[in-house]
Amino acid sequence: MIIRHEGDGRWESVPVLAYKEAGNVFKDVTRQVLFEGSDQLPCQLRYFEVAPGGYSTLEKHQHVHLVVVFRGRGSVLIGSQVHSIEERDVVTIPSNTWHQFRATSDVPLGFLCLVNVIRDRPTLPTADDLRQLRSALLISGLFME
Amino acid sequence: MIIRHEGDGRWESVPVLAYKEAGNVFKDVTRQVLFEGSDQLPCQLRYFEVAPGGYSTLEKHQHVHLVVVFRGRGSVLIGSQVHSIEERDVVTIPSNTWHQFRATSDVPLGFLCLVNVIRDRPTLPTADDLRQLRSALLISGLFME
Repeated sequence: MIIRHEGDGRWESVPVLAYKEAGNVFKDVTRQVLFEGSDQLPCQLRYFEVAPGGYSTLEKHQHVHLVVVFRGRGSVLIGSQVHSIEERDVVTIPSNTWHQFRATSDVPLGFLCLVNVIRDRPTLPTADDLRQLRSALLISGLFME
Repeated sequence: MIIRHEGDGRWESVPVLAYKEAGNVFKDVTRQVLFEGSDQLPCQLRYFEVAPGGYSTLEKHQHVHLVVVFRGRGSVLIGSQVHSIEERDVVTIPSNTWHQFRATSDVPLGFLCLVNVIRDRPTLPTADDLRQLRSALLISGLFME
């Protein structure tokens, strides 16, 4: 009933997993499942760690992410806005909203991410989506490559 | 969509609330609601902070708590066992299990606590429950007053 933190973003007996299957665009991300969900609390708690300079998949889906930054700093794209994030900030990713997490170049970005156990699969951007997103980010002066 | 941590277990624009209504037995606990829950993620994320020497209500209920220790250290009673807890440990409180969080005497104990939005009300121990619990804790050598 207690999973001990061993330091450095690792928990006792919790395997460090690949972030996603191949075929998605991401870089240097690991995943640990801290709570699988139960009948009485049908949510899954995962810990993701993005290595310095790494980033998660740019995607959107109907399910909501509730994120608490646990370690390091970085930025998050939500819709067409980029926000810097630091340890202990709380981030909500609304339904059907493009999002991507990035670590800064110097430290890893570790975050807790809560989702429903039952959830839809992410949608990846088409070439046209990417063009629109890049254009919106250029206008707002916050372009991320 | 981002709630900034201001340091010291406080978040921007998040009111620090009384832990519970009067009539419960607890000491020096505050509550902040970091996520109210939504249709797409019907969970509520709260941050509780127990001042040095303080403790939460001893209670049980059908709903499950998923807790991540965020700050300081202390102990948690789960059933008839007491466990020491430190920053970043993950604690699950199963259904219908007596539980109570306590800070050590020197530092506050801050923790994130996730629950379903729809949940049952806690049950408080009767004098008989307390007698049984004290007896079990004495036998296990981990008596908490």
